[in-house]
Amino acid sequence: MPIITLLTDYGLRDSYVAEVKGVILGIAPEATIIDITHEVEKFDVEEGAFQLARCVNYFPEGTIHVGVVDPGVGGGRKSIIIKARGALFVGPDNGLLAPAAERLGVEGVYEIREDRLPIKRVSYVFDGRDVFAPVAAYLAKGVPPTELGVEASSYVRLAQYQPRIVGEDLEATVIHVDGFGNLVTNLTYKLLDELGVREGCNLRVNLRGRELEIPYVRSFSSVGVGELLALVAGGGYLEISVNMGSARERLGISKGERLILRPEYR
Amino acid sequence: MPIITLLTDYGLRDSYVAEVKGVILGIAPEATIIDITHEVEKFDVEEGAFQLARCVNYFPEGTIHVGVVDPGVGGGRKSIIIKARGALFVGPDNGLLAPAAERLGVEGVYEIREDRLPIKRVSYVFDGRDVFAPVAAYLAKGVPPTELGVEASSYVRLAQYQPRIVGEDLEATVIHVDGFGNLVTNLTYKLLDELGVREGCNLRVNLRGRELEIPYVRSFSSVGVGELLALVAGGGYLEISVNMGSARERLGISKGERLILRPEYR
Amino acid sequence: MPIITLLTDYGLRDSYVAEVKGVILGIAPEATIIDITHEVEKFDVEEGAFQLARCVNYFPEGTIHVGVVDPGVGGGRKSIIIKARGALFVGPDNGLLAPAAERLGVEGVYEIREDRLPIKRVSYVFDGRDVFAPVAAYLAKGVPPTELGVEASSYVRLAQYQPRIVGEDLEATVIHVDGFGNLVTNLTYKLLDELGVREGCNLRVNLRGRELEIPYVRSFSSVGVGELLALVAGGGYLEISVNMGSARERLGISKGERLILRPEYR
Repeated sequence: MPIITLLTDYGLRDSYVAEVKGVILGIAPEATIIDITHEVEKFDVEEGAFQLARCVNYFPEGTIHVGVVDPGVGGGRKSIIIKARGALFVGPDNGLLAPAAERLGVEGVYEIREDRLPIKRVSYVFDGRDVFAPVAAYLAKGVPPTELGVEASSYVRLAQYQPRIVGEDLEATVIHVDGFGNLVTNLTYKLLDELGVREGCNLRVNLRGRELEIPYVRSFSSVGVGELLALVAGGGYLEISVNMGSARERLGISKGERLILRPEYR
Repeated sequence: MPIITLLTDYGLRDSYVAEVKGVILGIAPEATIIDITHEVEKFDVEEGAFQLARCVNYFPEGTIHVGVVDPGVGGGRKSIIIKARGALFVGPDNGLLAPAAERLGVEGVYEIREDRLPIKRVSYVFDGRDVFAPVAAYLAKGVPPTELGVEASSYVRLAQYQPRIVGEDLEATVIHVDGFGNLVTNLTYKLLDELGVREGCNLRVNLRGRELEIPYVRSFSSVGVGELLALVAGGGYLEISVNMGSARERLGISKGERLILRPEYR
Repeated sequence: MPIITLLTDYGLRDSYVAEVKGVILGIAPEATIIDITHEVEKFDVEEGAFQLARCVNYFPEGTIHVGVVDPGVGGGRKSIIIKARGALFVGPDNGLLAPAAERLGVEGVYEIREDRLPIKRVSYVFDGRDVFAPVAAYLAKGVPPTELGVEASSYVRLAQYQPRIVGEDLEATVIHVDGFGNLVTNLTYKLLDELGVREGCNLRVNLRGRELEIPYVRSFSSVGVGELLALVAGGGYLEISVNMGSARERLGISKGERLILRPEYR
């Protein structure tokens, strides 16, 4: 029985997540359910999309990912299944699932048809429990997406931040700030490597006009406690961090902030 | 092997929840354990009772629910098993389990007898781990409640908030504020439906003397972003909400607040 | 298949914990994974060590505990497996695992050799996912520690707080403050019992020069709501608590604070 993962903005104070799990286990008692996070900033589809995309490579073949950050629930937005290479995604068609599915490679999209589900609506605001949970459970039991929905020609994509290269400068954006206060940028290890920017150089970082020199290193402890550093962390993105501290607090930076970086070799 | 759910006020910072799970799995290794929530306000039995009652319909037949919000632990309060239609409840006899069990239909009550459990007390303040966890695990393995306790004639019930109907006015109470800031009232969909109060009407809401007109709709996105609305959400209760915002913050309301509602059709 | 527990300072906002679980389940799909906590204060090895040691007795024989509070990741610190009586521990060699392993009884230590693991590094800052998760999964599948590492002669131990006995006075330290605000001291039930300090006496507590008289009781409800008490709680340590309140808030105390206690029988 495949793994079903859950990513939501429901938080952990309420019984919402448990209701989703109860519905899944009622249909697919053998399913292994793994929480990705339920602490996505409320209604922040981009944040949820980032979290889902970051972790999707670490789950085994056949995993079913349910994502619900869904400000448009009950409105006109579609419910979809995306079939990707080695995984299925279930959730609202608002861009949440797209980056993760594209990271694996999209193979098909299906619009969920509620009339094919044995559900009894009492509410139109909790599709995580009332639509996506049963869909995921049936998929886990081997029901094909074509029985739960109809093939669709497209899905909503997120406008993606792309770093810009201007002469020697890299114009980057902070796309996520994690719980440690690490500032995750949209500069991937792959891009840096192609540009010849390697560990060992210093990065001259321009941040709201302030100039900082930050060493690009391989581990936090390459610098002293409390010092700034840049490194490629788990997700494959360049992060600005403080060894045993919080770069968010040190620099007063939040998500969406722009940085200009220039690598310098000595 | 049935599902065992856990609802506590232990929080997630400490190892308390894990100790409960370790004890359960030591006795019933095949049990599927689902967290309902561990973030119930400390010692708030009513809050815990609300959460448990809200989600209990979404778990499959045979589920065993362990609830521990237990300000009287170590004092005189009894430990009980309530057998309800399709589920068993285990916890302190302080009202926590009653609304959920009554929602399903109570079939029997048993006072747990610690002398029938193979437990070794080192502490009298952690019955979740030392009493309720082994009881739930034995129930999951098929031991009948009569072997773990003795039949009891009654159990503690919570004074329930009941809405009052005064002429055309509905006097309601906010019984829960969820993590999104939605204000959950004690007005059920069933009651509103019986009174002919249906989606599409406006609700004139009197709140500490202030008059507000709030549309009763089917989904958050029926109103503009940041606007007030009323709807029946997942739990079957009327909620006052803000589309993509927090009604708690907007209205400065907390649990226990009284509202007077008058439906108006145009 | 044994239980694998996880204790980290990763928090629950990010996908880090899920990535660890994905890797484990990719190798050992039948593993039961239990979260101890992911809310250890960031980089606080001592706090993590306390939590792990406290709960380790409640897990069944054969459990594999993964602990990751790891300020030195990517630096020179070793990765280890500790074989203890009835359990295996996996994590950084920084003292985190030592108190828990010693509580059970250490039987062997192994330094993990990354070249024996089928891992592909893209980052040097996430050993929880890239090293400890696969090691735990292989151990769960029955691979012996000797195949994953080489025997080591020692491991890093934490400087342990030891209470001091000076005449009639007990000099204790607050080693943990839990989510309820209970102040956990380093005085064990065993020590108190040996000294003849039993429930029923009063403790004269000197706290920064202030003198308090606190009854040593068996349960919170032995004193009135809002009153101070001392008791031995779940972990076997003497705690200073407030019935239905927070001793941390009442006394303005935090971790590391020293107390002098003198038992008084009337």
